Amino acid sequence: MVGGGRGAFIGGVHRMAARLDGRFELVAGALSADAANAMASAAELGIRGYANFAELIAGERARPDGAECVSVVTPNHLHAAPAIAALEAGLHVVCDKPLCLTLAEAEAMRRAAEASGRVFVLSHNYTGHPMVRQARAMVVAGEIGAVRVVQVEYPQDWLSTKREDTGMKQAAWRVDPARGGMGGSLGDLGTHAHNLAEYVTGLRVEHVLADAQSFVAGRALDDNAHVLLRLSGGARGALWSSQVSPGNENALRLRVYGETGGLEWSQEHPNQLRHAPLGEAPRVLARGVGALHPAAAHATRTPAGHPEGYVEAFAQICRDAAELILAREEGRAPDPLAATVPGVEEGVRGMRFVAACVASAREGGRWTAL
Amino acid sequence: MVGGGRGAFIGGVHRMAARLDGRFELVAGALSADAANAMASAAELGIRGYANFAELIAGERARPDGAECVSVVTPNHLHAAPAIAALEAGLHVVCDKPLCLTLAEAEAMRRAAEASGRVFVLSHNYTGHPMVRQARAMVVAGEIGAVRVVQVEYPQDWLSTKREDTGMKQAAWRVDPARGGMGGSLGDLGTHAHNLAEYVTGLRVEHVLADAQSFVAGRALDDNAHVLLRLSGGARGALWSSQVSPGNENALRLRVYGETGGLEWSQEHPNQLRHAPLGEAPRVLARGVGALHPAAAHATRTPAGHPEGYVEAFAQICRDAAELILAREEGRAPDPLAATVPGVEEGVRGMRFVAACVASAREGGRWTAL
Amino acid sequence: MVGGGRGAFIGGVHRMAARLDGRFELVAGALSADAANAMASAAELGIRGYANFAELIAGERARPDGAECVSVVTPNHLHAAPAIAALEAGLHVVCDKPLCLTLAEAEAMRRAAEASGRVFVLSHNYTGHPMVRQARAMVVAGEIGAVRVVQVEYPQDWLSTKREDTGMKQAAWRVDPARGGMGGSLGDLGTHAHNLAEYVTGLRVEHVLADAQSFVAGRALDDNAHVLLRLSGGARGALWSSQVSPGNENALRLRVYGETGGLEWSQEHPNQLRHAPLGEAPRVLARGVGALHPAAAHATRTPAGHPEGYVEAFAQICRDAAELILAREEGRAPDPLAATVPGVEEGVRGMRFVAACVASAREGGRWTAL
Amino acid sequence: MVGGGRGAFIGGVHRMAARLDGRFELVAGALSADAANAMASAAELGIRGYANFAELIAGERARPDGAECVSVVTPNHLHAAPAIAALEAGLHVVCDKPLCLTLAEAEAMRRAAEASGRVFVLSHNYTGHPMVRQARAMVVAGEIGAVRVVQVEYPQDWLSTKREDTGMKQAAWRVDPARGGMGGSLGDLGTHAHNLAEYVTGLRVEHVLADAQSFVAGRALDDNAHVLLRLSGGARGALWSSQVSPGNENALRLRVYGETGGLEWSQEHPNQLRHAPLGEAPRVLARGVGALHPAAAHATRTPAGHPEGYVEAFAQICRDAAELILAREEGRAPDPLAATVPGVEEGVRGMRFVAACVASAREGGRWTAL
Repeated sequence: MVGGGRGAFIGGVHRMAARLDGRFELVAGALSADAANAMASAAELGIRGYANFAELIAGERARPDGAECVSVVTPNHLHAAPAIAALEAGLHVVCDKPLCLTLAEAEAMRRAAEASGRVFVLSHNYTGHPMVRQARAMVVAGEIGAVRVVQVEYPQDWLSTKREDTGMKQAAWRVDPARGGMGGSLGDLGTHAHNLAEYVTGLRVEHVLADAQSFVAGRALDDNAHVLLRLSGGARGALWSSQVSPGNENALRLRVYGETGGLEWSQEHPNQLRHAPLGEAPRVLARGVGALHPAAAHATRTPAGHPEGYVEAFAQICRDAAELILAREEGRAPDPLAATVPGVEEGVRGMRFVAACVASAREGGRWTAL
Repeated sequence: MVGGGRGAFIGGVHRMAARLDGRFELVAGALSADAANAMASAAELGIRGYANFAELIAGERARPDGAECVSVVTPNHLHAAPAIAALEAGLHVVCDKPLCLTLAEAEAMRRAAEASGRVFVLSHNYTGHPMVRQARAMVVAGEIGAVRVVQVEYPQDWLSTKREDTGMKQAAWRVDPARGGMGGSLGDLGTHAHNLAEYVTGLRVEHVLADAQSFVAGRALDDNAHVLLRLSGGARGALWSSQVSPGNENALRLRVYGETGGLEWSQEHPNQLRHAPLGEAPRVLARGVGALHPAAAHATRTPAGHPEGYVEAFAQICRDAAELILAREEGRAPDPLAATVPGVEEGVRGMRFVAACVASAREGGRWTAL
Repeated sequence: MVGGGRGAFIGGVHRMAARLDGRFELVAGALSADAANAMASAAELGIRGYANFAELIAGERARPDGAECVSVVTPNHLHAAPAIAALEAGLHVVCDKPLCLTLAEAEAMRRAAEASGRVFVLSHNYTGHPMVRQARAMVVAGEIGAVRVVQVEYPQDWLSTKREDTGMKQAAWRVDPARGGMGGSLGDLGTHAHNLAEYVTGLRVEHVLADAQSFVAGRALDDNAHVLLRLSGGARGALWSSQVSPGNENALRLRVYGETGGLEWSQEHPNQLRHAPLGEAPRVLARGVGALHPAAAHATRTPAGHPEGYVEAFAQICRDAAELILAREEGRAPDPLAATVPGVEEGVRGMRFVAACVASAREGGRWTAL
Repeated sequence: MVGGGRGAFIGGVHRMAARLDGRFELVAGALSADAANAMASAAELGIRGYANFAELIAGERARPDGAECVSVVTPNHLHAAPAIAALEAGLHVVCDKPLCLTLAEAEAMRRAAEASGRVFVLSHNYTGHPMVRQARAMVVAGEIGAVRVVQVEYPQDWLSTKREDTGMKQAAWRVDPARGGMGGSLGDLGTHAHNLAEYVTGLRVEHVLADAQSFVAGRALDDNAHVLLRLSGGARGALWSSQVSPGNENALRLRVYGETGGLEWSQEHPNQLRHAPLGEAPRVLARGVGALHPAAAHATRTPAGHPEGYVEAFAQICRDAAELILAREEGRAPDPLAATVPGVEEGVRGMRFVAACVASAREGGRWTAL
């Protein structure tokens, strides 16, 4: 693991997720940009500690029982270098989203992944929910007809005030262009929303038109953005990302409307999927109730009515990554249900989405191709 | 009443709404563009029948007990003429929304209303809900701070297929530019959403940028539209109107986020208002529970926990209209709580909203002033 | 109308309900037990005023255009006398619930109703909701199989403190055995819950076992009661009535589980009915969406997605009463969809329910036949 | 681990829960009553396998690195023997609920636990949810005043038909008195509901009165039961357990009403807790939003808005068990927030609850002391 030391957030989630199914064992880490903190954090976890990612990769390569996969859970500006180094060293990579800082980095990462022949998984964790898998399978199977409208949003409220000035580490790097990237809410939340929309519909966002704002004075990156979407196949949509909307914690919500039906899913109540066949009573699909697609069962751990949550979805990304890695090592095709997990290509698309939105907004609202 | 004969929809709602509080008595009508149907419909209702609105106005003026107020509930292209004629004859007017067909008509109606000194009320019925009144009062009182973001949407699904070709009268005129106006979903639903956003926030939509579509082949007007909003005071927002989103009946929903709190309201569950003060647990405000603004009590008929609905909100428009008319007749200032009811000015703004959206969409997405 | 003068609650609701559909015209009233208040209240409403119900009945009988139907909306101890007098005078009666004060009164009312040949309707208003009608029709049609379990509850919170000592008229008579009757929460709320359960299932509560409490010190009648139910056909259930459960306004809720499906309905969101066919995804039935029973459409006024509420359901009782009266006057069979409206028989059953619960509780919990 | 081999359900959940926080490592198991299956299941998991629990305990005791804690996840009739043997061998025990088969066994387990000085934790997993911990802390702190009414229910639908005859292992032992115990729905679900009510309120169920049924023909144990509750301090309540209510998966729901407020919590949406202070708007408490008690934070792993579920609550039981064990080993007092986790005493109370309900129902409904 690179990143995820004391005081970090997402590293701990990755560790829980990896432990849940027991498919990965954490053996080593360069857990902080600060070497002392890195070593101390590793000692706390009882794993092999390294001062930085270069030493980690070198050290693990040198061991017969060295790590096979590197998990990159650093702030955005520190994704590309360790990921590329790991790939070049023949290690598989699970990388946190968004992919990186710039389009150039993104392309470099793609090239490295392709050249390496290693597995590269991007932790767009919301694609790990069984009901998201079910939604995707329903759209693919034509159960709502050709998609017409996609509404996706990811509002939060935690940056309604200038928390980056209060010493809060999570806030500080996210609002800093040098560490967070081109987008604020667009990079942190919009990439999740964009990915979820594409994952479920199987369509591609081809053009965007954005209006982006920084409502909190003195903030360099957007903390709210509205984006109009034009997707492949003629579908249209809207995406909203916000860090300044009180009463929203992580209110990611996707709605997809096709010619013959509609689907609605919300991250905060992820175990249900509303399906409205045109002209019929809407039904509330849930894991384990009635006939669902195998893709839903593939991503489930508990029986109907026993809710799964954030960590379980994250764990699914890990479990699918494990299957991809095993299949690669064993020279076989992976389980197709695991193979839908996002990878470097989705990461590149996410970076293009942010870049296009930022460009569109900067020019005062103009349709911009991804 | 002008319009609202056999086979019509909104006329019957207006009649129920007027009866609910007993402030109006329906005495006469020109209930259909078809004279025979008009007379037969009036006979069914036991009121004085007229073949057309001109005869209605002339006939009622000639009676000492003639009607004092005309309710215009015709399709959009038949609003302006009877409303103007009624105003010029010294009658008050309650007119269905949207105001009319064109900006020119809208301006003529405004001039007629101003010149007449009569009351003109526009039935933007959703402003009659107690919790909408409460939301407006909270924003005015600064309870959520300066407004930053406004999300408003009004999706339906009933025009997902080409019902206008099935002989359905309600569908036929709404999709016909000659009878419905410039906008399809924008005119029928977008005007409600636009009005509700302005009513609650007290802000004005100053610029729009729209993408509008006709998903059903052969339909001349938009059946889906996404609109970016820039409001007075620097607030931003998004508006979505749709007639092709399966699983949505009349899913009008408003969300307003300010510096210190958020408000959420949904037409299909109108008795609740979610209020999230920043950093505190969200609370579910409801009529009659805890301390609410007088504006909420003003619009309420039943105790807490006994739901009010669509007709009650409509009735509030009538009850407020009655107060405005009485005050006008009695030469006094009306109850300020009644005076927030939408009038001709809101009607003109609605028409400008539609015109600006249509123009923006036609030009491929451009910020357009109202 | 008998009762319903200044300061009363349910009288005003009855008046709105009667006006909504225009099937009744209020012409006269003995609106208060206080003669002066009665006359003043009538003057305010612009109707013929009488000092008491005896004068009302005599006065109206003497007029060729006298009232045809008497609406009894007094506190419970003042139901029997005016209702019986009206029936004996050949007037139809719409009476508020619960039927009366004692079992003896109830039997006398039943005899009077049967002897008179007049229509007697009991305003168990919750049976007027379209989705309640739909639920009944579904059970009758066997769509959930034989009923096994019935859960019904009606909690409120407004008597959590001793409001009867604060001069609140609505509270004072309800907690007074001389005016409210045998039951407190059981009489006011339990009768609604009992009636709703029988109305929807078509079953009869045959035995009850109750535990009843007065949590507020010094209160003579129960303010909370739990009742076990044994219904005809072998179904079992539980009923809970409460006036001391904070956070509940009028949280009447019915759940019915049969061999092949379940139904759930809540008064505070009355436009939806949850139907869970065994082994399939639950669906949310709503007025106007998909295929419903004619009984639902019969009780509906507005299109799908435009919520109806408390007054509309009350109005349905009036509309059905009007149909029963017209049919009686015209010597024809009434519309069978109207004929399900509760009458004197349901009133007698409700009184027996209260009496049985009170007796069971008093004896420390014993199965007691109705 | 004893039990939890191939085809079992709860064993896998225990393993995930134990892994999530990394506080336990699974090293050995007697995973099935069938020795061959036991060994094969252990091999699959890569742990030391034993043919039965006696060999497991003997084998592990003999090793310097032997297991310190035994997790008992067998059907109910196989709890007492391995748990007592483990305690007597000086091992800590985490045991699945209900505690065992009979009151005699329960008392023996209690004596063994007390004599051993070892930690005994009972996996009443629903007490591990952060919002359940919050509810308990609120009641203890007097935030809803003295408790008056407790409504708790746990309906399911999976035994609506005779699945025990279809070869479904989970169904077969639960409906068999020899393996499931005295109660059917009462033992499997009622014990959870009873425990949750006592855990949150801090009160004790002192008397019960029950009506229990077997709706599915040929089933020996109850598949539905209604129970009236009398709790310490004068509170009253009702408990409902059901396996035959279509549309309910694991719909455990607790409502507690006190003199000054109400609390509502539902297992299927466990991240929210509704708190209604009397006379104020209800608020929706959630992990990480606003000021909560430390007990909530103690049981939380993810930030506000990222839902936790069934496995996380289970993991909390494990994490608390780990703290109790460590404290015992280190000779110190455990974290008081961990010490609320249910133990053998709660297990004994649960068995008494079932026994009292069964006795009450058998005698036709009689108040019975626990």
